[in-house]
Amino acid sequence: MEANKLVIYNTLNRQKETFSPIHPPHVGLYVCGPTVYGDAHLGHARPAITFDILFRYLKYLGYKVRYVRNITDVGHLENDADEGEDKIAKKARLEQLEPMEVVQYFTDRYHQNMDELNVLKPSIEPRASGHIIEQQELVRKIMKNGFAYESDGSIYFDVEKYSQQYPYGKLSGRVVEELLNTTRDLDGQQEKKNSFDFALWKKAKPEHIMRWPSEWSDGFPGWHLECSAMSTKYLGESFDIHGGGMDLLFPHHESEVAQSTAANGHESVKYWMHNNMITINGQKMGKSLGNFITLEEFFSGNHALLEKAYSPMTVRFFILQAHYRSTVDFSNEALQASEKGLERLMQAMSKLDSMKPAGQSSVNLPEILEKCFAAMNDDLNTPILISYLFELVKLINSVSDGKQEISEADLQSLKLNMHLLVHDILGLKTPSKTENQAEDLNEVMNLLLQLRVDAKNKKDWETADKIRKELTRLGFTIKDTKEGFEWSK
Amino acid sequence: MEANKLVIYNTLNRQKETFSPIHPPHVGLYVCGPTVYGDAHLGHARPAITFDILFRYLKYLGYKVRYVRNITDVGHLENDADEGEDKIAKKARLEQLEPMEVVQYFTDRYHQNMDELNVLKPSIEPRASGHIIEQQELVRKIMKNGFAYESDGSIYFDVEKYSQQYPYGKLSGRVVEELLNTTRDLDGQQEKKNSFDFALWKKAKPEHIMRWPSEWSDGFPGWHLECSAMSTKYLGESFDIHGGGMDLLFPHHESEVAQSTAANGHESVKYWMHNNMITINGQKMGKSLGNFITLEEFFSGNHALLEKAYSPMTVRFFILQAHYRSTVDFSNEALQASEKGLERLMQAMSKLDSMKPAGQSSVNLPEILEKCFAAMNDDLNTPILISYLFELVKLINSVSDGKQEISEADLQSLKLNMHLLVHDILGLKTPSKTENQAEDLNEVMNLLLQLRVDAKNKKDWETADKIRKELTRLGFTIKDTKEGFEWSK
Repeated sequence: MEANKLVIYNTLNRQKETFSPIHPPHVGLYVCGPTVYGDAHLGHARPAITFDILFRYLKYLGYKVRYVRNITDVGHLENDADEGEDKIAKKARLEQLEPMEVVQYFTDRYHQNMDELNVLKPSIEPRASGHIIEQQELVRKIMKNGFAYESDGSIYFDVEKYSQQYPYGKLSGRVVEELLNTTRDLDGQQEKKNSFDFALWKKAKPEHIMRWPSEWSDGFPGWHLECSAMSTKYLGESFDIHGGGMDLLFPHHESEVAQSTAANGHESVKYWMHNNMITINGQKMGKSLGNFITLEEFFSGNHALLEKAYSPMTVRFFILQAHYRSTVDFSNEALQASEKGLERLMQAMSKLDSMKPAGQSSVNLPEILEKCFAAMNDDLNTPILISYLFELVKLINSVSDGKQEISEADLQSLKLNMHLLVHDILGLKTPSKTENQAEDLNEVMNLLLQLRVDAKNKKDWETADKIRKELTRLGFTIKDTKEGFEWSK
Repeated sequence: MEANKLVIYNTLNRQKETFSPIHPPHVGLYVCGPTVYGDAHLGHARPAITFDILFRYLKYLGYKVRYVRNITDVGHLENDADEGEDKIAKKARLEQLEPMEVVQYFTDRYHQNMDELNVLKPSIEPRASGHIIEQQELVRKIMKNGFAYESDGSIYFDVEKYSQQYPYGKLSGRVVEELLNTTRDLDGQQEKKNSFDFALWKKAKPEHIMRWPSEWSDGFPGWHLECSAMSTKYLGESFDIHGGGMDLLFPHHESEVAQSTAANGHESVKYWMHNNMITINGQKMGKSLGNFITLEEFFSGNHALLEKAYSPMTVRFFILQAHYRSTVDFSNEALQASEKGLERLMQAMSKLDSMKPAGQSSVNLPEILEKCFAAMNDDLNTPILISYLFELVKLINSVSDGKQEISEADLQSLKLNMHLLVHDILGLKTPSKTENQAEDLNEVMNLLLQLRVDAKNKKDWETADKIRKELTRLGFTIKDTKEGFEWSK
């Protein structure tokens, strides 16, 4: 590992490796996006934010990144019990809607949530349903190479045959011999040679709405296929980074590796990256556990488990306060601590502009900044970065209070780097101008009403009356209280 | 035509007809969306707003509307000279980008512009590139029925043969005999039987990036095909309304009619609706004329022809002040007049909440409201509706000034219907709370600084100093000028 170079943990080799793209300065990045048959929750926010940080940091490092994040809108076969049932089509049947109408609705809502979290839009956001031809071509390639078989109109990937030639289980660490000895007789899927074979193409049942013609049957592609097809189409047969949640490691990503290798004779991904999972009050998130909180519920506070609303930036900051490979536990206490921390950070940011240089700096700023970037280079260690940012917050506060000094050159560098690290790389937004205006209005109103109290105390009735009269004309309601005053509009 | 029923002008029959959906209460609406190889301009805003009004009004009338608006991201063959050159692939080659990256970029920007204009999202927004299989199936159907022929890997629609059986030119009024006698020898397109035959499938040149396999060639679908394929997929072989700009009438919509009829043996659309065109200072809009103004330029004012920025709501209101079948000429004068009108309307809206009922109404409110809805029922006559809204603005202002009275029942009805007509049906947004805060801040600051001037005039230096000092502490800069004062933050 070289110093001052980005190092990332490669799930494939289970170690940190210096990042070195295949075709510099270009970087190809593929991340598994949402299945759009429900509202986005924390399990969607974490990978989106994790790989947003990677996207932002790679761009900061000067790479030209093509970031592809897909929309799964068809053929999500989640497990054997569910197999053959396309989740989205199921939901659509229940709601008497066209599946694509459900897809559009939840895609639009997902986009809104991502915008709120300040997650940058990917370069390309392909839909699985828009790449059926590419997926069919991939099936043909795998069949031609002998790693898939047809059974009653469906095509299955032959895991046993593949594993005789390639190391199946390489990515997830699953041992194929073990898989081979499991309950193949019990699962009742007569079509398959082995229970762990997975569908590349599935014949549609008569009631299945989403279907496309093929030489095998009217049907739809298996879930794993779309990511192999779309990553190849937009990033090439070999590309740099594939990301996703750890829950996708098996079977989804393992199947992707097998599909690409079976089709091309070589693996396609140089670095596999996986973010860890989220728990809520120590429990796994699940609809049946009643702790399934959507992002919208977090932002509005409208859920029994939430004591209050948490802004998108609080949620983002909270997620960044843990390293992406650690688990994160959401609780009201933890979120409120993050909220306060973010407020302190943002208050310091707002003081930057009015800071004045004087004398010599009392801290070694270049050294702290170097540590900030070293943290990012060390597998995107955002919690360490944030701890150094709080050292800088202390510096900003003491200089502002006149307790410490900062040189002209250091002040310039501090402003530049705080903006770069907080806004550009961590993607934390300063409350917008309009949010500031609300705060300004509040401050100015308080000042004005205090003047009215002063005037009354001085028996300057003319001024006191003028203030009340003018504010009333502008539509404000002024109320005198024991503590002083209240206002509303 | 029945009274109190929606009547729309049907381009197909060149007359106003009472709207009667095929499967009430469901309504299928298809509108041609943008070709995403450049920023959206007024030519995109007008159809989007026109059919947004239709979408909103149909929903108000109680219909369950499935509104499909496509994204053209491939195969836009604009004319013979351009034929075979996919516009998007061309742009992508120039910019050394993957075509889908260009598509994503301009699609995202289009969505942002539409959100700013308060255009509701359609129920389904299908992409042409995502429906290649459906388009290929349609080609096969048309070939099977004998209305298309293959020529060097491309498939063309046989207009002459079609016109022997069906009335080609029915929608646009073009006379096929005339087309048949035109310059067929001169156009040099040796592949076609007739110059006016159009491509259903086009063989891709070697350098063409966007391509898909087919039994005819590796290629891409013709532009007209996507709308026939996607409208059928999501709305059925027969559906209610197809909309678009008048510039699409020929050849695009005429070709759609021919394709659907050739495939199914019957027409698919019951009502064709077309919005008229926009001129700028009396001239046609065009890149070469230097009067090509994007929506973003309108909203920022950043274009040589614009005297100032015009808010999205001003642009929307301006478009609605003309009937959709009339031409509209954009000029700074006209936009500024709309801006003032919208301000008057919105000021009246903000007075509604504080209005007090008293005695008997001095106007016949139900009669005016009836005229409002009659205007909407008369082929969405928004300019007439707006003229009645201004009668109601007058009423609101005189009641607020105590010059007229309004009964309790009428006041209730007025509030309800103004909200319904202005916000829900016309889609005009009241400036958001945050925009109001900016205005409030401005007003309160002016009041505060006027108090400071008063204090100085009264030689009350203590108060004058306190105001300046406190505002400075809050980060404001105060400047005394000849006219009084200026402030900034």
